[in-house]
Amino acid sequence: MAIRSFAKNSYRSILKWGDPHHFEEPKKRLIKYLKKNMGVTEEDFKNPHLPGLDKVKLDKLPALPESDISALKGIVGQGNVDTSDYERVKHSLGFTYLDIVKLRLEKVEPLVDVVVYPRNEDDVIAVVKFCNERKIALIPFGGRSSVTRGLEPIKGGISLDLTRHMNQVKKVNEINCSVTVEPGIIGPAYEDYLNNYKTPLSPGGYTNGHFPQSFEYSTVGGWVVTRGAGGLSTGYGKIEDMVLGLRFVTPQGLIVTKDFPRAATGPDLRHLVMGSEGTLGVLTEVTLKIWKFQPENRVYFSFLFKDWEECVISMREIMQGGFGFPHMFRISDPEETSIAFVTEGISDTPIDKGLKMLGYKDGKRCLMLGSIEGDKDAGHLIKKKAKAIAKKHGAISFFGSIAVKAWYKHRYNDPYLREELMDIKVMTDTLETACTWEDIPRLWAGVKKVVKARPSSICMVHASHCYENGANLYFIFISRMKPDDMIDDFEKYHTSIINAIEQFGGGLSHPHGIGRMMAPWYEEYMGETSMNLLRAIKAYLDPNNIMNPGGTLGLDFTGERRKAFSAK
Amino acid sequence: MAIRSFAKNSYRSILKWGDPHHFEEPKKRLIKYLKKNMGVTEEDFKNPHLPGLDKVKLDKLPALPESDISALKGIVGQGNVDTSDYERVKHSLGFTYLDIVKLRLEKVEPLVDVVVYPRNEDDVIAVVKFCNERKIALIPFGGRSSVTRGLEPIKGGISLDLTRHMNQVKKVNEINCSVTVEPGIIGPAYEDYLNNYKTPLSPGGYTNGHFPQSFEYSTVGGWVVTRGAGGLSTGYGKIEDMVLGLRFVTPQGLIVTKDFPRAATGPDLRHLVMGSEGTLGVLTEVTLKIWKFQPENRVYFSFLFKDWEECVISMREIMQGGFGFPHMFRISDPEETSIAFVTEGISDTPIDKGLKMLGYKDGKRCLMLGSIEGDKDAGHLIKKKAKAIAKKHGAISFFGSIAVKAWYKHRYNDPYLREELMDIKVMTDTLETACTWEDIPRLWAGVKKVVKARPSSICMVHASHCYENGANLYFIFISRMKPDDMIDDFEKYHTSIINAIEQFGGGLSHPHGIGRMMAPWYEEYMGETSMNLLRAIKAYLDPNNIMNPGGTLGLDFTGERRKAFSAK
Repeated sequence: MAIRSFAKNSYRSILKWGDPHHFEEPKKRLIKYLKKNMGVTEEDFKNPHLPGLDKVKLDKLPALPESDISALKGIVGQGNVDTSDYERVKHSLGFTYLDIVKLRLEKVEPLVDVVVYPRNEDDVIAVVKFCNERKIALIPFGGRSSVTRGLEPIKGGISLDLTRHMNQVKKVNEINCSVTVEPGIIGPAYEDYLNNYKTPLSPGGYTNGHFPQSFEYSTVGGWVVTRGAGGLSTGYGKIEDMVLGLRFVTPQGLIVTKDFPRAATGPDLRHLVMGSEGTLGVLTEVTLKIWKFQPENRVYFSFLFKDWEECVISMREIMQGGFGFPHMFRISDPEETSIAFVTEGISDTPIDKGLKMLGYKDGKRCLMLGSIEGDKDAGHLIKKKAKAIAKKHGAISFFGSIAVKAWYKHRYNDPYLREELMDIKVMTDTLETACTWEDIPRLWAGVKKVVKARPSSICMVHASHCYENGANLYFIFISRMKPDDMIDDFEKYHTSIINAIEQFGGGLSHPHGIGRMMAPWYEEYMGETSMNLLRAIKAYLDPNNIMNPGGTLGLDFTGERRKAFSAK
Repeated sequence: MAIRSFAKNSYRSILKWGDPHHFEEPKKRLIKYLKKNMGVTEEDFKNPHLPGLDKVKLDKLPALPESDISALKGIVGQGNVDTSDYERVKHSLGFTYLDIVKLRLEKVEPLVDVVVYPRNEDDVIAVVKFCNERKIALIPFGGRSSVTRGLEPIKGGISLDLTRHMNQVKKVNEINCSVTVEPGIIGPAYEDYLNNYKTPLSPGGYTNGHFPQSFEYSTVGGWVVTRGAGGLSTGYGKIEDMVLGLRFVTPQGLIVTKDFPRAATGPDLRHLVMGSEGTLGVLTEVTLKIWKFQPENRVYFSFLFKDWEECVISMREIMQGGFGFPHMFRISDPEETSIAFVTEGISDTPIDKGLKMLGYKDGKRCLMLGSIEGDKDAGHLIKKKAKAIAKKHGAISFFGSIAVKAWYKHRYNDPYLREELMDIKVMTDTLETACTWEDIPRLWAGVKKVVKARPSSICMVHASHCYENGANLYFIFISRMKPDDMIDDFEKYHTSIINAIEQFGGGLSHPHGIGRMMAPWYEEYMGETSMNLLRAIKAYLDPNNIMNPGGTLGLDFTGERRKAFSAK
């Protein structure tokens, strides 16, 4: 009895990912797999676990005095200040696994006191000034897609929601191939605007090049301040490769950088804003690279390898081949490949039997998918070169462009699955790490072993962003929830995985920040001097610690506080 | 009577660029041009102007007490501390125009007190600690190729020369395609090491990809801390695109960053080190990208355009074409093209006449040169695409690969010409700016007008580094010196050009930093909040202002001091 409707003001409406009318049913073959391997029963389907169907209702009033709320109304206008229970809850968390558990338990804490919708940069400047004087916590808010506890209002205060007003494309500069945009614009509005910006210089419009899995419900500002990666980052670059210039409001004043693609004018302060995750100020405008939109030029490739080792080597050789990079480029480890074969209905077909006879055995074989955008001839050349390398390492072409086109079509859908699985008491979450090519084999094996140490767990791994000098590893883990011990059980498991990532030389985050979730590991990861430097920067720009306080990036951890923050 | 020999310990030996036995005679046609247009006479050749042939001799002892010098000897060893007049002078300046004038006048001030050659990172840590405790200025020293007054020891102190010992390649990692190297290694030693690192994975060895004009006499550390650009940066990236990880000793401790190519782990502190120009600490190790060395794969192209506008548009369209980038890619403006035709002996030949008849007129026509390295097929494809764009904008192929091969061969030679020209009282210097594509036409015209406002001056301009969203403009100006007013006259002229760059929207530096030379413009360029943030970072990492103090990046300017620093 999957939940297909719920009240607009329910906890469910907050915990449900994305479009309220879009649902992703787990595929029948996946359900069969879960029943067989994880003890999922028909009973689980009949009684969704803690579905959060009640209306949001708080028993706490905002902690801020009425005078402060009046003052805020004076700055941004009466209608742009909201203290309703529903908006306070909605603005107090993102989509971290633990956030969803809180919503299912219908116990959300801590809470912001008030939601403020600034109309423009002047409003932001005034609100920051006010909060700084009154020492009120201020948390910039975009698409709410954080999976790192990035929005948790440890000190209450104000959620500064940039999506209502500050969501416009301000200028497309076709000569510079750049766009200037406000931070609160959501992915599709941004991309649609560019796609429809059709002129003699680019009859097909433009594309922004950044497509994280959260694309449909995340904002440009969120991408920038968390140093986001997207599905086509291998070709277009991560967000830090796209940002040309920005405007950033801090308690100490406005930082404005120039939009030269490269310069040698001292330290590059854009790289302090990128990754600041709300702790240093509020992004109010950003100028980014754009590209001509030519989906008709896309070239696709898809290969099947006999094993993971050869697959990784091939990916590396393609990235180091000196002939250009694919835009989308990913490899799936044997377990992810195996499950794809199951869910796509290829397992046990004559094709599968044929593949096995050729040496592409289940539990060993690995998929590689790729696409190239931009110039078609360059695309074909890169494909040809990639194919030669893959063949050299024992791969065969596999389903031509079908698998890659399916990836494009369904690339934003996976997050919808999580709520359906949690309804049947199945935990699913992901952790992603940066690594060098050299470390991939041991990092993959070491972390995987820890994930799989939990009985009946699935651990699908892929590398979906790569570079000449390394790649990411993306671990998807699926396991049975302990319904009576949801939080501690998850945290222990989760912590063991992060510890393994650290132990085997992975980075704390490849795609979208540290937040409060990875913060307990952050100081050791950065080293003492770097951490002290970050704290000095924070102390200068935000002397009253109003900007997203309470553990983000571990900037305001002290002694016991830090320890208590995590089970580590 | 060109100077072809001089004493080893003379001022001349310091002011002369590069190899003491390599001389670049101005081409006969250039001399003819200078005689005709700048009043250069045979007399000028007979009596070289202030040749600096005397031996270096100071009348000042080091200001540091003997106890400090002993303490330094205790740290790095007796033989690694030098207080000789010659080394003190040599370590007190670089190759800024005004540095050369000082050497010709044989009056070098200010001076460092002592030169220290650390043997390893531990030595650097100990020296930094000592200087911090004793509040002694410390200036990291590499190849001495600064053209921004980056080494001027305003507060005396110690020159920390990293070239004697800290000049080793520590590790080549072929899997990661990276190299870990000490900062004091000079370009050719570094590149030769990589070229000769031949293994089954790369039978032709590797290349470092970074080739500034100063390559033969500059260091890897200098490239990093000044955010350097090289002749092949369009393809391989600027140094900030190559740095993976680094180790950096500051008075507050050691900063170590990880060598993941991308991550989302907060602000990226590598971007504070890059561009710090000695003001925050001492780089002791850096891990950089490398590429397979395959010079046999190079593809060359060379086109002639009817005018500058079409040439710029073509360069932009090639960079925005989505088919990859050339590695070397440059366009020369009409004046630079015209002088190239003269000096290469093409002017007034039948070829020249034919070109003119076809509409490629002197004073209008512009050269475009390019090369692609790496994969040969990709190279040919990029060339084909570039050619199609160039043809569309009225260009013709021109001399095939000859001009580009000549560029490769002579790419490091131009700096040798400056001393020869100054000997005949001809001033030559360069200024380079970053800009967006949109601003190139007015920036080019506006700055050029200011340069040419000086009677009988030459202003050759090229764009030699470009990006999807902009390029550099490199202004070479040649004019007659005022022998009796060398400094003020130069400074006024120079200042007027920088003011014009600022006025017409150019960046203060594209290739190699701010130093003390551009510092008077820097605060206005960065904006108040950014500048205060940089000063806060400086105050934290270097609380006693020992690191390259006295105006670099304008960090320790205050009030009148700043004004007095420049004629602006």
